[in-house]
Amino acid sequence: MLRLSLLRITLPRPTTLFNCPTRHTKLRPQTMAASYTTRSSSHPRSNNLLFRQLFEKESSTYTYLLADRSHPDKPALLIDPVDKMVERDLSLVKELGLKLIYAMNTHVHADHVTGSGLIKNKIPGVKSIISKASNSQADLLIEAGDKICFGDLFLEVRATPGHTLGCVTYVTGDGPDQPQPRMAFTGDALLIRGCGRTDFQGGSSLQLYKSVHSQIFTLPKDTLLFPAHDYKGFTVSTVEEEMLYNPRLTKEEEAFKNIMENLKLPYPKMIDIAVPANMVCGLQDVSAKPVEATSN
Amino acid sequence: MLRLSLLRITLPRPTTLFNCPTRHTKLRPQTMAASYTTRSSSHPRSNNLLFRQLFEKESSTYTYLLADRSHPDKPALLIDPVDKMVERDLSLVKELGLKLIYAMNTHVHADHVTGSGLIKNKIPGVKSIISKASNSQADLLIEAGDKICFGDLFLEVRATPGHTLGCVTYVTGDGPDQPQPRMAFTGDALLIRGCGRTDFQGGSSLQLYKSVHSQIFTLPKDTLLFPAHDYKGFTVSTVEEEMLYNPRLTKEEEAFKNIMENLKLPYPKMIDIAVPANMVCGLQDVSAKPVEATSN
Repeated sequence: MLRLSLLRITLPRPTTLFNCPTRHTKLRPQTMAASYTTRSSSHPRSNNLLFRQLFEKESSTYTYLLADRSHPDKPALLIDPVDKMVERDLSLVKELGLKLIYAMNTHVHADHVTGSGLIKNKIPGVKSIISKASNSQADLLIEAGDKICFGDLFLEVRATPGHTLGCVTYVTGDGPDQPQPRMAFTGDALLIRGCGRTDFQGGSSLQLYKSVHSQIFTLPKDTLLFPAHDYKGFTVSTVEEEMLYNPRLTKEEEAFKNIMENLKLPYPKMIDIAVPANMVCGLQDVSAKPVEATSN
Repeated sequence: MLRLSLLRITLPRPTTLFNCPTRHTKLRPQTMAASYTTRSSSHPRSNNLLFRQLFEKESSTYTYLLADRSHPDKPALLIDPVDKMVERDLSLVKELGLKLIYAMNTHVHADHVTGSGLIKNKIPGVKSIISKASNSQADLLIEAGDKICFGDLFLEVRATPGHTLGCVTYVTGDGPDQPQPRMAFTGDALLIRGCGRTDFQGGSSLQLYKSVHSQIFTLPKDTLLFPAHDYKGFTVSTVEEEMLYNPRLTKEEEAFKNIMENLKLPYPKMIDIAVPANMVCGLQDVSAKPVEATSN
């Protein structure tokens, strides 16, 4: 019942298609798309997908590069780019012969400044993307159910608030030509054997619990989970693994709430610089000197 | 001519098969296995392979977990485990329901202590592996052309000396049931847009150049390259990419030698602790306090 009511809240409007070929049909409702399989794997299989995971050491942030390499333009997108790594990222994009079309964020980060703004400055055609619920500025403001296409591949948007009010998870499409297993870019909603803190930026442990259980744990069990951070050197997990071994999210809702309310984490050192910057794609005073990063 | 003569040097003896089902045929000579294709991808496709890339931040070391998940035992191996991350690695092995059979090293590391010895202590059945040419102790001493099986999957051994005298590259098998594209675990011989230093441990820039060009660049262009380290946050590259963009190894031999002889790198801070330890699988005085790591 909970899942159904959440879906009613997050999917009240027609799906918006960003850059999608007209032959693409609309997304099926998420309740229909959800299915369980027992097959698992560690990496997606798709002849079309070019995929790179990139790491920024100071804030332990992962940036993801995805491209449709079978398309003549090789359209590409970056998820959660970091300002100080933009040169590396764009150099890789160039070397791989890709055409970057989107610089996307899963949410307004508190531990680093997004690279979206810098990327837009360097490649004027690139469009920045963030959720409408984040109340931030970007070229495209997306909502649950939206479909973001790059070539013949696409990501669907799932609303996963709780770490922040505007957190979304981007999930690769469900279809024969889309990556198998599916891949979910969970931002800070779900980390490997962990999750993002819920004590700032409109965070809510109850909401995070509902988001993960209704929007991520309902994906096929072999779905690959790629978080925005990892502090222990893990690079990927699966829905199945987190449903079995996540030390927080395998708990009952009330126990989870208690855990999250007693984390006693320090005040995020970057938050006062990062959040205002990230509300405008990282384009305001980026010369401000960042202080040492903290875990999210 | 160079490639052929090198192969004659590195493949003078019958291939040794480690743990391989009898139905496995011997390796084809590497000259036959080498082929060029234009197809490229970012991740291997194999329903059988479970693959995880793991990172240790201080020495920027990658450890790789590979397993045959279609085999009833789920036999697994770890390449280049780090002593301080053994608990993490073994916890993951357990959670994934794998049976670890090998703890392998690409070479005698100078920047961190291997986890092989600790792993053997914790899981007595595990066998350590290193090259015979490293002059180190291990349960199995491998040479070029050897085949290391885990379930129905296997790695072949290629000698890639130059960073150290005993460096090897482990390459996934060539065959219909093996991962596609192939994957090469290059240790410090070939790093993403770089390579290991050649001024210690029997290193030789000339030898490294020959190793990479004859043993790695002859693999199919879409072969995924997984190095032992990355300092810029890259996780994977391909043969094609490094043949085009590696700033050192795309140069002529003499220019490469000049680059390597003028790197002016500091003395490796961990070398006096790490090398003696790694000569015996990391099992000697592991209580010695490591100092700050340096790049390799």
